[in-house]
Amino acid sequence: MSLRYALLGLLADRPASGYDLLQRFKVSLANVWPATQSQIYTELTKLADAGSIAVSDEGPRGRKEYTITDAGLAEMREWLTTTKPKRVARNEMLLRVFFLGVVPQAYAREYLSGVETDTAKAEAQLAGLEATIDWEDNDLSVYGRIAMEWGKRFYAMNQEWAEWALTQIPER
Amino acid sequence: MSLRYALLGLLADRPASGYDLLQRFKVSLANVWPATQSQIYTELTKLADAGSIAVSDEGPRGRKEYTITDAGLAEMREWLTTTKPKRVARNEMLLRVFFLGVVPQAYAREYLSGVETDTAKAEAQLAGLEATIDWEDNDLSVYGRIAMEWGKRFYAMNQEWAEWALTQIPER
Repeated sequence: MSLRYALLGLLADRPASGYDLLQRFKVSLANVWPATQSQIYTELTKLADAGSIAVSDEGPRGRKEYTITDAGLAEMREWLTTTKPKRVARNEMLLRVFFLGVVPQAYAREYLSGVETDTAKAEAQLAGLEATIDWEDNDLSVYGRIAMEWGKRFYAMNQEWAEWALTQIPER
Repeated sequence: MSLRYALLGLLADRPASGYDLLQRFKVSLANVWPATQSQIYTELTKLADAGSIAVSDEGPRGRKEYTITDAGLAEMREWLTTTKPKRVARNEMLLRVFFLGVVPQAYAREYLSGVETDTAKAEAQLAGLEATIDWEDNDLSVYGRIAMEWGKRFYAMNQEWAEWALTQIPER
């Protein structure tokens, strides 16, 4: 369901073809809401059928450019302002941490070191992505940067926590 | 699937009835892996059928006490040491942030303030929970505390980020 709003949001910024949208997903939304080409194309067809977007141009080889309609824009605003995301309570990484006392201490140490290493990798990937983005001077960029900052802080927090957690493993 | 390991983990600590396990879920796992009574009882039956746990005692009114078997313990260790949780990439809160440029600025401000308030509430709830927990001096407590610390840092990070994000909203 959220893919629908991600596409509406991108089209609220400017008209785009399915291919353009796929590229924007790869670059800017990959860390927030990954989607495959076929998911994107399926959702675009649904949105067009529902009147939330319209084909505003057709090019060679069946290339279609979509534009958001007033109805789509109203839908998007409704989603942003009146619905609340569910709080994500399930966390598989933490569930494992909870039970590390069941395995020998060396494994617990290895697991927490792994969390630290994986987070450092993810952090580096995000920094790499940030360096490649050609931020435009518009509202989408402002909020894209705000979202990216969350990711940076999230990874930094995870890394610091894992480092600290390693110091808490009982010495027996 | 992870509920299976949560139950095995609790039973690796000590034998317990379905009722005991439900209480422990409510207190200590509610923020990591919420589960309902019926989910817990269904999974216990499956685990017993598979030989991962065994009924070690039967009391009045059909109360059964379960104990983890060697097979169950091996399964638990396998899960902890060889499988990796998928990285959670989908984040509905951030997806909304990404598109806040689509709505009037006042809504964007309200949304981010809402994130701040909700996180402060969640943080207070967690602090309340922490105060009620009668930590025992065992490994489960050590790792329970480590998991809880993650939650505290996560909420603190979210709050600081939302505060910062509010200062980034363009002034037009």
